[in-house]
Amino acid sequence: MPIDPKLNVVPFISVDHMMKLVLKVGIDTFLTELAAEIERDFRRWPIFDKTPRVGSHSQEGVIELMPTSDGTLYGFKYVNGHPKNTHQGRQTVTAFGVLSDVGNGYPLLLSEMTILTALRTAATSALAAKYLARPNSKTMAIIGNGAQSEFQARAFRALLGIQELRLFDIDASATRKCTRNLTGLGFNIVECGSVAEAVEGADIITTVTADKQFATILSDNHVGPGVHINAVGGDCPGKTEISKDVLLRSDIFVEYPPQTWIEGDIQQLPHSHPVTELWQVMTGDVAGRTGERQITMFDSVGFAIEDFSALRYVRDKITDLGMFIELDLLADPDEPRDLYGMLLRCEKKLELS
Amino acid sequence: MPIDPKLNVVPFISVDHMMKLVLKVGIDTFLTELAAEIERDFRRWPIFDKTPRVGSHSQEGVIELMPTSDGTLYGFKYVNGHPKNTHQGRQTVTAFGVLSDVGNGYPLLLSEMTILTALRTAATSALAAKYLARPNSKTMAIIGNGAQSEFQARAFRALLGIQELRLFDIDASATRKCTRNLTGLGFNIVECGSVAEAVEGADIITTVTADKQFATILSDNHVGPGVHINAVGGDCPGKTEISKDVLLRSDIFVEYPPQTWIEGDIQQLPHSHPVTELWQVMTGDVAGRTGERQITMFDSVGFAIEDFSALRYVRDKITDLGMFIELDLLADPDEPRDLYGMLLRCEKKLELS
Repeated sequence: MPIDPKLNVVPFISVDHMMKLVLKVGIDTFLTELAAEIERDFRRWPIFDKTPRVGSHSQEGVIELMPTSDGTLYGFKYVNGHPKNTHQGRQTVTAFGVLSDVGNGYPLLLSEMTILTALRTAATSALAAKYLARPNSKTMAIIGNGAQSEFQARAFRALLGIQELRLFDIDASATRKCTRNLTGLGFNIVECGSVAEAVEGADIITTVTADKQFATILSDNHVGPGVHINAVGGDCPGKTEISKDVLLRSDIFVEYPPQTWIEGDIQQLPHSHPVTELWQVMTGDVAGRTGERQITMFDSVGFAIEDFSALRYVRDKITDLGMFIELDLLADPDEPRDLYGMLLRCEKKLELS
Repeated sequence: MPIDPKLNVVPFISVDHMMKLVLKVGIDTFLTELAAEIERDFRRWPIFDKTPRVGSHSQEGVIELMPTSDGTLYGFKYVNGHPKNTHQGRQTVTAFGVLSDVGNGYPLLLSEMTILTALRTAATSALAAKYLARPNSKTMAIIGNGAQSEFQARAFRALLGIQELRLFDIDASATRKCTRNLTGLGFNIVECGSVAEAVEGADIITTVTADKQFATILSDNHVGPGVHINAVGGDCPGKTEISKDVLLRSDIFVEYPPQTWIEGDIQQLPHSHPVTELWQVMTGDVAGRTGERQITMFDSVGFAIEDFSALRYVRDKITDLGMFIELDLLADPDEPRDLYGMLLRCEKKLELS
């Protein structure tokens, strides 16, 4: 049997590689293709191994592992969420992930996922909105103009053609940064002084704030008929953004209910409250939006399958574009049962050198 | 506040680095110091976040994530178990792991753990035997002479002074390999033709076979009074080595009962059967061996805390010895909320170059 001479090696995509890969593919194309991969996996949702992410919570934040498998490939992501990190020059959320071969358990890819998560979160949001927002949607409010905001804007433009943005952040400098970063792409941007001003006339309201506490970013009076709410920021226990009154007026769509009940904005509701699984809308089993005046809400928390889709997509891309280095991650003795002998041979080599 | 200029970088210990590190420290010293680290963590067992490992099972094997935290550091290991891998020149078990800072969620270390797992498994076995085997133990039988066998031999010599080995494997070439690898270290080795022959006169019986099926490596008539059984190979659902009759005659010691009931040899017993947690023997809360004729058994499956100890130990070592490379794993934008801007700046740089 032919044996791969480099069984020890796992391709590694650094942050620098990921940026170059995204830019080479083009941000719009990347988001569009990635959304298509995610959609493809949502349409075969039942075949995946699913579990709520495994979190280790502390006062400062959370570290989570998010595994899933389709029976052929296995993927997991490591991700942290530490809201106070920005005060020390660190990211609130960083992540990396691994894709593996279910047949032999060997990793096929190790990748940075801070940037990739930002892209997959935005792609998933826009994908959900494609099914849930009114088809003639033109204007999106973005409440919270931090690290995820521009990715949301780009994804909604790439997938839905949204060009009118109304931005608000309690920190005006974040809004200015968002505007600056999105300049020159054909967006029509309005910087707003309040949530109320930002949601005025918006077809889609994206909430993507970062504080870990029960907050009410979006109140009942902010949400008119027909709006689609893309609730991204409420994504861990105790962290919510949307007032309960708004939830009660909305039809709520989620990724994986056992996880969303723990982490999403619906943690404010009794578990008897009806929610719809987004994948069932994509397969056509369940209706998404049914009328012009209906309020739809995607209570996004981020699920392992989206990361799985992203890792698989990236793996296919690097095969063409070669943007990775080889990591000596796996012990590969000449004789598989002879791990100890590998150590001895290394010793001999060191003695000779 | 001073900010680390290299927030993007995570030290990575490759397989090659790990081998050089182990050899530089010395295998005996490494095993002894590692066992001391594991013992230190077992003695403060209650403070750890504990969960049975999160497994993704397939027909071919299993991929598992093993997280834990002491509130200051967080660690997890990725490990696969695929018994048929050796037929394709691959390892049955490969692993890598990460140690992180609970305060900000940032990884502090990424390390190969195939070799490190072999060492920590052997160190834990010998550590358990230090508490459970008769103090005058001289002879160990090793049933199963694959990748883990030499590490077991080295650890039992380093920690307990065991020099008499009786080896058996259904594949005689595995036994010959084990003997060859252990030659010149002062062991007195007897290659045996059967389990019955190997266990003759042994004070300690180590079972470390790899087949994934309910097997009976060790039968009732193999086990005399006073013996300590170090059961290493029965470590996943459906995979056991020790006959139920032997279990019923033994006092059984385990790492983390919720995991061992799923994976250990005790999966053959009703959950009402008494088992003792090893850490309680180390703190002195519960007696270990109480008599010369008592049969003790360590039903080892490998728990996350052992990997945590190993990662912490390795991290302390590389600080002195510098055996790692720097991996560009974490996105580190100049302004933490400006992840998208980092992508734009990369674009500009590429245009200029």
